[in-house]
Amino acid sequence: MKRILILLSLCAGISLSAATHPVLLLTKKGVADMKESLGSVPKFDRSVEQLVAEADAALLKALCIPEPKDGGGGYSHEMHKLNYYDMYACGVAYQLTGKKAYAEKVKEILYSYAEMYPQLGYHPLGLSKTPGRIFWQTLNETVWLVHTSVAYDCVYDFLSSKDRSYLEKNLFRPMAEFIMNGTPDYTENNVTFNKMHNHGSWATTAVGMIAIAMGDDDMLDKALYGSDKTGKNGGFVKQLDYLFSPDGYFTEGAYYHRYAIWPFVTFAQCIDNYRPELKIFEYRDGIILKAVNALVQMAYDGVFLRFNDALEKDYNAQELIYAVSIAYNADKTNKMLLSIARDYQDKVLVSDAGYAVAKAVVDGEAEEVRFSSVFYRDGGKGDEGGIAFIRSADPDLNSLVSFKATSHGLSHGHYDKLTFAYYDNGNEIITDYGASRFVNIEAKYKGHYTHQNKSYAMSTIAHNTLVVDEKSHFDGKIKVSSKYHSDIYHVDFDNPGFQVVAAKETNAAPGVEMFRCLAYAEVPFLEYPLIMDVLKADSDTPHQYDYPIHYNGHMINLSVPYDRALEVMKPLGKENGYHHLWVEAQAKGGEQTTAYTWLTGHRMYSISTNTTPDTEVYLARIGANDPDFNLRNEPMYMLREKNASDHVFASCVETHGKYDLQVEQSANLVRSCKGVEVYSNDEALVVKYSFINDNSVLFCVAFKDNSTDAEHTVEVDGKPVKWTGPVSMSIN
Amino acid sequence: MKRILILLSLCAGISLSAATHPVLLLTKKGVADMKESLGSVPKFDRSVEQLVAEADAALLKALCIPEPKDGGGGYSHEMHKLNYYDMYACGVAYQLTGKKAYAEKVKEILYSYAEMYPQLGYHPLGLSKTPGRIFWQTLNETVWLVHTSVAYDCVYDFLSSKDRSYLEKNLFRPMAEFIMNGTPDYTENNVTFNKMHNHGSWATTAVGMIAIAMGDDDMLDKALYGSDKTGKNGGFVKQLDYLFSPDGYFTEGAYYHRYAIWPFVTFAQCIDNYRPELKIFEYRDGIILKAVNALVQMAYDGVFLRFNDALEKDYNAQELIYAVSIAYNADKTNKMLLSIARDYQDKVLVSDAGYAVAKAVVDGEAEEVRFSSVFYRDGGKGDEGGIAFIRSADPDLNSLVSFKATSHGLSHGHYDKLTFAYYDNGNEIITDYGASRFVNIEAKYKGHYTHQNKSYAMSTIAHNTLVVDEKSHFDGKIKVSSKYHSDIYHVDFDNPGFQVVAAKETNAAPGVEMFRCLAYAEVPFLEYPLIMDVLKADSDTPHQYDYPIHYNGHMINLSVPYDRALEVMKPLGKENGYHHLWVEAQAKGGEQTTAYTWLTGHRMYSISTNTTPDTEVYLARIGANDPDFNLRNEPMYMLREKNASDHVFASCVETHGKYDLQVEQSANLVRSCKGVEVYSNDEALVVKYSFINDNSVLFCVAFKDNSTDAEHTVEVDGKPVKWTGPVSMSIN
Repeated sequence: MKRILILLSLCAGISLSAATHPVLLLTKKGVADMKESLGSVPKFDRSVEQLVAEADAALLKALCIPEPKDGGGGYSHEMHKLNYYDMYACGVAYQLTGKKAYAEKVKEILYSYAEMYPQLGYHPLGLSKTPGRIFWQTLNETVWLVHTSVAYDCVYDFLSSKDRSYLEKNLFRPMAEFIMNGTPDYTENNVTFNKMHNHGSWATTAVGMIAIAMGDDDMLDKALYGSDKTGKNGGFVKQLDYLFSPDGYFTEGAYYHRYAIWPFVTFAQCIDNYRPELKIFEYRDGIILKAVNALVQMAYDGVFLRFNDALEKDYNAQELIYAVSIAYNADKTNKMLLSIARDYQDKVLVSDAGYAVAKAVVDGEAEEVRFSSVFYRDGGKGDEGGIAFIRSADPDLNSLVSFKATSHGLSHGHYDKLTFAYYDNGNEIITDYGASRFVNIEAKYKGHYTHQNKSYAMSTIAHNTLVVDEKSHFDGKIKVSSKYHSDIYHVDFDNPGFQVVAAKETNAAPGVEMFRCLAYAEVPFLEYPLIMDVLKADSDTPHQYDYPIHYNGHMINLSVPYDRALEVMKPLGKENGYHHLWVEAQAKGGEQTTAYTWLTGHRMYSISTNTTPDTEVYLARIGANDPDFNLRNEPMYMLREKNASDHVFASCVETHGKYDLQVEQSANLVRSCKGVEVYSNDEALVVKYSFINDNSVLFCVAFKDNSTDAEHTVEVDGKPVKWTGPVSMSIN
Repeated sequence: MKRILILLSLCAGISLSAATHPVLLLTKKGVADMKESLGSVPKFDRSVEQLVAEADAALLKALCIPEPKDGGGGYSHEMHKLNYYDMYACGVAYQLTGKKAYAEKVKEILYSYAEMYPQLGYHPLGLSKTPGRIFWQTLNETVWLVHTSVAYDCVYDFLSSKDRSYLEKNLFRPMAEFIMNGTPDYTENNVTFNKMHNHGSWATTAVGMIAIAMGDDDMLDKALYGSDKTGKNGGFVKQLDYLFSPDGYFTEGAYYHRYAIWPFVTFAQCIDNYRPELKIFEYRDGIILKAVNALVQMAYDGVFLRFNDALEKDYNAQELIYAVSIAYNADKTNKMLLSIARDYQDKVLVSDAGYAVAKAVVDGEAEEVRFSSVFYRDGGKGDEGGIAFIRSADPDLNSLVSFKATSHGLSHGHYDKLTFAYYDNGNEIITDYGASRFVNIEAKYKGHYTHQNKSYAMSTIAHNTLVVDEKSHFDGKIKVSSKYHSDIYHVDFDNPGFQVVAAKETNAAPGVEMFRCLAYAEVPFLEYPLIMDVLKADSDTPHQYDYPIHYNGHMINLSVPYDRALEVMKPLGKENGYHHLWVEAQAKGGEQTTAYTWLTGHRMYSISTNTTPDTEVYLARIGANDPDFNLRNEPMYMLREKNASDHVFASCVETHGKYDLQVEQSANLVRSCKGVEVYSNDEALVVKYSFINDNSVLFCVAFKDNSTDAEHTVEVDGKPVKWTGPVSMSIN
């Protein structure tokens, strides 16, 4: 319905009246309120002071508009970034102080760019498919224009109409045209502008914001509804339909969700100020606000979870300052955002929204973030698998299990399906490598994604899931991977003592059906909840199945004797990421079970898995075939089944013990699990986990029929075990 | 003088009257004050609540006095530890609450031990030279007795004289006898009891405390003045003379200083309560309080510095709770200790001293700790070298350079001389491995020091100093190493812009004289202070000189092309720690200079050193020949000069750049140093460090004559450079 409304307003072709300025992130009324309040809202005051200090520093700087030359981290790149930050700071400072020097500074810088810009060809670096003119890629140019639009909006009334005409003609319109269409001889930018991709969101946002600042409704319509203004083939609104799932999940994963949210919330705020009748924050059942909430949930201790391409980013990232401020301002019932601003963020946005946040925090309205187990569907329609985050019911326990069974996730997706990771007690325990990149460091492949991002980080062996025949899922071919997604089989977080998620994957390894079921269970005789993992591979033909567990911590104990690489170390394989792993030790599996224990922080972690003496056991470490030292040297534990057609890897991960060096007290440092046995028939299986003191847990999984009322029976130790529904647990 | 007084009081043979109880850590008056104040001093209240909760938990426990069997971390070991903690908690709780159940519990446990103890032979584990009876080593038995003495003291008046006679006869006297003398057939404990070693301090403290609790002045005299009560051949007082240098430095290093301080402050407090006329806290110019202050200084961000055998311990370690409480109580002008209690420690001691600290904190008397550059002499007389800690003048900069030129440091010393390490911005940057040990973890060599502690951690290649011919200093022979110490050549921290320390070492590598001079200098054209390092080796015969730099962080750039180990990795050498290092890459040195840059946290670190194309360059990583995965996989950068007789390694370590992923801003990521040249004659040298923008720093070092008025001249670039005194710097 809401989509129709937006299209109607478009079809009516109503050209709205030119706005009063400012209108993007600040409004006349907002500025008046902020000025009025100065001195009474500490965090806002500090944010203003910081911004004014930046503006004052900018006033002292000599103009420096270098010839575009360097990539990220290089001189010209960083200088052009500083220029837009300076203009932004001066523009907003002008609004808050009325001091004309700030506006003059913006004008001076803008004039310099207006002189240079029309002379520029493409950036000389030649490393991007969509090169910019000021920057090596158009993407950075859109970010430049987003910031500069705000600055222009802020000094709009200060400039003469002659100034504005000159700047718009020589700088803003050519740049918007370039972002929308590229150049006559190279129109790749037009593809991006209309693309369902975070670069496209930046492009529409940049063009839309300068359009609003200039009062150009036609240009704004292109930003909102695509180059053809139909809303069908591109534009910000279609991006809102396409890039987020109905649950607000951004298909590239948490790290790019964080990046993508920036243009979405920023442009949405501008639209809401300029065309409030669009009710953009309510569009698609409030998709932008849902996306902010989903992003907040996809963090552990304030740091975003690593999966797909991901580096370390946290709630204090600048995008989150925008997202938290703007989302709270759009929905003041969402008071959890206030505690994020209060506890994690160094500052608030100096804008109407940021002021609203800082004021509400001072007024004591902040509520703690309620983290809970969540499942987000992937895909614009929500039918392309999904991702689950299981959390401990007791927030003090601070545990999280993630499970990825999504679509590929565009260019920043990794190939792995049915991957899990584990966070506990403030640490990453079972890890996802994330991306191999050193942003802005010239010495590291000029700050771009390194070659090892593709050769290792994206490979499936770099993840905690099944690898078939030493090949990445979909053989590492993004064109194939992008066609498919995993299918969610069962999700149930209603019982905090037995939270379960399960999914199937039938395309990642041709001829092999994969099924994984993860449970996070409270077991009375164990110190901490138990993770149970069933990873099942089915095939008509024999394969090699690898079950890697990447962990963070120090090796404590392997339950079987092993051969350690003492004098020579060699890689695990030849390709597909295997060539990046040094084999530190090899072993044969235990008669029935193999267990491995490591220490992270103040706790022990033990994984016990069903094995036979034919199982091969490996301890490995990342770093082989890495000529430029781009990879981190992290450890891996792996089980390998050779010549298997149907196989079930059944494991449990125990969290146990207290290891406190300060008082030199320790307890429960030895794992409790003594055996893992799998009993199965052709539609269901039971894993029996045996523990010390004759305790046991039965994990019952029906892998063919996920209906909640179907009954299942599996014979265990000669006796039938019966249950109803896809999963069940019994503790003995 | 004070020593004479103490001996006089001893010679007079005065037997002091039996004390009122409690008298060890608590006093009657103290207990009255504490009870009076309950509810008004939050931190003390919380500490009491915690202790009473422990006592209450103990009341609910069934008695469990297992047969001595396990080593550290094992069941019987941990249970006997819990028992002394339980008795301690119940004893003190009884004093504060008067609740008899607590005293009954102490009595119950004591009776059980009194029944068992006389039956016990030596502990069966057989891993210690001084095995205990309850524990695998007598050391743990002394700790047991220290805690239990406090418990006994607290319930002394509650017990009947029959109880006391029984317990003293069957438990305390036999145990004290065992600690003092061992058994008739194995008297090694007597050696330890009279030894100048931290085990000896625990032994005298335990015996002395139970002696005070029992009112046995003869036994107390043995604890104070050794088995023969002369004060000449052993005892606590001699330990105070011998184990600490006149500056309060404990010869084993910060980690064991932390451990050793516990019996010293604890027993001193008891002595001060029982024999106040000894003025034990004033003894030897206040050596105990000096030792506490030195310990406080030997930490970075509250974590003790790693050198010699060392694991991670911080201000919150239980020993520090004792040390800070007792030292403040003994000298209430030392208000810096209050901020340590306030900011780092979770609790205070529930004792007169702990109450004094908590009360003073509430009264707002805490002062911030003033860290400054310090130099501590080593050796009882202060003439056995020393250790320096240079700190940035600006505390916000939070930088520290350590320099070790001490004696060996008893059994926990490492062989390396003239070693340096660097801490900056909250991180270890140039690191010392510390010890290889997993305290209390049975799976790791039963929690003892691992074999790799000797084969790697103690080896000289594991440290940042000169290694000659791939041998550890003193060829790794403690008997040889213990005879010698380095000699301090020059220390000057008066000018915060140019802080310098230099030392010589002539015995570590026979036939090779080593000299090292480190400067921490503020250089106007650099972002952060510069570390300059001159490491000079002199010999009549050719040697191989290795210059290893162990660092924490990720490799960013090496200034010369290198061969990376891609498919095969092999160890750096065959023995002396070299066999534990995998060679990750090899290179030839640059024509004049070789530089290496790594990233730690948000900053870059670059070391530039004079080299020639004959210099060999290595990048290595710990982990080879480590069958049990006991070592941490940390990286090393190393320069090697082969067939050199006289050689100077001259380096500078630059701290530069800002790398902030949250805002994706970066600056100054590339090192500024462009060249390092050494100019020398037979008595002095000048290192010329050249930087971008034609800047340079001359570091002038006279290595033969350290008099402050001697004049020196070295020709640099054909021109004489002149200075006066051992070191000088000129910035151009």
